[in-house]
Amino acid sequence: MVVEIINTGSELMLGRVLNTHQQFLCRQLADLGAVVSRQIAVPDRGQDIVNAVRESLSRADLIITTGGLGPTSDDITRDLVAQLLGRKLVEDQTVANKIEAFFASRKRPMPQSTRVQAMVPVGATVLQNANGTAPGLIMEVNPNPFRSPGAPPAWLVMLPGPPRELRPMFSEQVIPFVRHTWPALHCVCHTLRTSGIGESVVEERIGKLLLPMVSRGLDLGYCARIGEVDVRLAANGDGADVLVSEAEAIVRPELEGFLYAADERELEEVVVEMLTRRGETLAVAESCTGGLIGHRLTNVPGASAVFVTGIVTYSNAAKHNFLGVPEKTFEKHGAVSEICARQMAEGVRTASGCTYGLSITGIAGPSGGTKDKPVGTVFMAFAGPKGTVVERQFNSYDRQTFKQASSQQALNLVRRNLQQLPY
Amino acid sequence: MVVEIINTGSELMLGRVLNTHQQFLCRQLADLGAVVSRQIAVPDRGQDIVNAVRESLSRADLIITTGGLGPTSDDITRDLVAQLLGRKLVEDQTVANKIEAFFASRKRPMPQSTRVQAMVPVGATVLQNANGTAPGLIMEVNPNPFRSPGAPPAWLVMLPGPPRELRPMFSEQVIPFVRHTWPALHCVCHTLRTSGIGESVVEERIGKLLLPMVSRGLDLGYCARIGEVDVRLAANGDGADVLVSEAEAIVRPELEGFLYAADERELEEVVVEMLTRRGETLAVAESCTGGLIGHRLTNVPGASAVFVTGIVTYSNAAKHNFLGVPEKTFEKHGAVSEICARQMAEGVRTASGCTYGLSITGIAGPSGGTKDKPVGTVFMAFAGPKGTVVERQFNSYDRQTFKQASSQQALNLVRRNLQQLPY
Repeated sequence: MVVEIINTGSELMLGRVLNTHQQFLCRQLADLGAVVSRQIAVPDRGQDIVNAVRESLSRADLIITTGGLGPTSDDITRDLVAQLLGRKLVEDQTVANKIEAFFASRKRPMPQSTRVQAMVPVGATVLQNANGTAPGLIMEVNPNPFRSPGAPPAWLVMLPGPPRELRPMFSEQVIPFVRHTWPALHCVCHTLRTSGIGESVVEERIGKLLLPMVSRGLDLGYCARIGEVDVRLAANGDGADVLVSEAEAIVRPELEGFLYAADERELEEVVVEMLTRRGETLAVAESCTGGLIGHRLTNVPGASAVFVTGIVTYSNAAKHNFLGVPEKTFEKHGAVSEICARQMAEGVRTASGCTYGLSITGIAGPSGGTKDKPVGTVFMAFAGPKGTVVERQFNSYDRQTFKQASSQQALNLVRRNLQQLPY
Repeated sequence: MVVEIINTGSELMLGRVLNTHQQFLCRQLADLGAVVSRQIAVPDRGQDIVNAVRESLSRADLIITTGGLGPTSDDITRDLVAQLLGRKLVEDQTVANKIEAFFASRKRPMPQSTRVQAMVPVGATVLQNANGTAPGLIMEVNPNPFRSPGAPPAWLVMLPGPPRELRPMFSEQVIPFVRHTWPALHCVCHTLRTSGIGESVVEERIGKLLLPMVSRGLDLGYCARIGEVDVRLAANGDGADVLVSEAEAIVRPELEGFLYAADERELEEVVVEMLTRRGETLAVAESCTGGLIGHRLTNVPGASAVFVTGIVTYSNAAKHNFLGVPEKTFEKHGAVSEICARQMAEGVRTASGCTYGLSITGIAGPSGGTKDKPVGTVFMAFAGPKGTVVERQFNSYDRQTFKQASSQQALNLVRRNLQQLPY
């Protein structure tokens, strides 16, 4: 089965946006066992789009296009594809009603141009858009005029460009379609997520142990992101489940203590789940991360039951007023110090009445570093009924990477300590 | 001039990494006036790479490849291209010496496989790699066997995959080469960023007015993200500056009040700059956004001078304890109400001693909605020395999009009010 992706959008060719669709779609399709063999991006220009679609139809069984389904004048993909395949466009009443309802519910006037999104090529299946007005489309190209006679039909899936419309549409509607149309695809892919250990150390620990299984067809991959490393164990076809399970049984004990999830959960989800299960609450005092820890925790549905209060105290005055850090801490040790982190964690725990207090204080840069405490220095503390632990870390990165890495270490500090505390 | 990019790498097709090369190269080339007309990604498989290069040579004047120049077994691009063009590979003594020196300076043994990187196709120009061992290559394909006789020569530029090797090599060596080889290139591109207005309304306001300029060669584009819409005005060649300036003069008054930047700045950067210029400070009380506003503000270097305190008050108790919201507000109106937003903004302003207080309280979902206040309802308030304004918005999205859209509206509320306040 040959799969290709065509991303349309002049903003891509001008380098104004990052093509996150490619990674998302390639990842999802690879997990299904359908690895993409070519991805193409073209501007919103008629001939470029038509050429790309025609060429993909000459090679692929499944072609996924993104973008060009919206209401503005540069949204031309739907019309061009209909023309290329000789299909008329007709108004789909269900879609038209949905678009009207979308604007009515927001009490906004509906621009006339919006209606064009209800125009659907004859014979196409409509993919409902739960998060916008442009529907997606699935079209069977059978016979396929761009391939030799007797070739199997091709399927063209057209998705809207905005990621929050494309992603759920793909996960909820296109994946079931792919599974149904190509039932022989079989791929088992487990991801083991770790934090607090580097990529090369992970490989040193498990790479050699897994060599025999790699020769039996195991696809072993590592993916390092800021403050975390994923280990990917995948296999295709018969016996894939057994092979992946055997590999996982070998990997788990080697990564003990660093492993935080054996699925796609984020570290913040794991922390919220642990607290929820324990019926306990957490308050956070952030300096250098500026609210990122609170933001990550509250991305998890249900976080409100366990994450009650967050205080962002950038200034010393705020650390004193809201957390009760004594003035002499700043004078003697500075705001970026072990003792300040400890007092912040204990202070926010007391002020909020939560079971635990987490704090973080550091130097994000680009300025503010000293010889003893260079940019990248960060202290974090976790306070609970059994006492307080403090950690020092050094994240010598740009500002945003510093914040992400530090928030990851702080959440991991909570996870590791909760794991050891009986309840 | 036709430009194409070919990204090689199986990790791209498995969706394990994001293709940041595309955006970087497209952006740099567009700024030179050489907009890329097609970008292609293929796995590290011989036939896929050869087909992609051959097809690009049949269309383009400049082809840039990334990846496949390193020493490991999946680095095959250099060999395949040499073969396709019928060029022998010969060892380049300068490159070989540099590779040896690279390992010697790091006191690491040089793996024999590394030497393959010194093999250079006959006639190629070597691009020095200041940050790694694999050199880049520039090859003139003249005559071009994949285009009709008499066609201009094509240029093939091959770059190494690691971003910290590719980026400086491109900026320092390839850009001068492109300027020198195509001296007539000239491009002007302005981005106008708006918030608080939908994409189709933006187009209704300006699309028709700009039609005459589009027919004169203006490239007009829209890019909608969560809570914001960019308008892109671009043109090439002689008269590009005049055309883009004329278009901008027409667009600006139509988008008055919604326009927040005429460059690539984010809304949080604009807000931090406004406050910095005014010498004023802001405190933020967040409920439903959970720290995202603080996170966004503190992504801006220098934010610590103007963003002093953020308080994340998810629970009513925290809203009462830290912000002084009276208990009877929750009883009579609920925490998601106009009065609560007002009291939160005024409360955080008083508690922190900042010039302004910003608050936000709403229902992110998926649960917690009522008939009167469905999921997506959000109130935000901005309190200052001249009084308090409150806004109600409705962001009926998934949880993370709700947070992003709400934080955007809240920052825009600050921006709009600061704009109107003399200082």
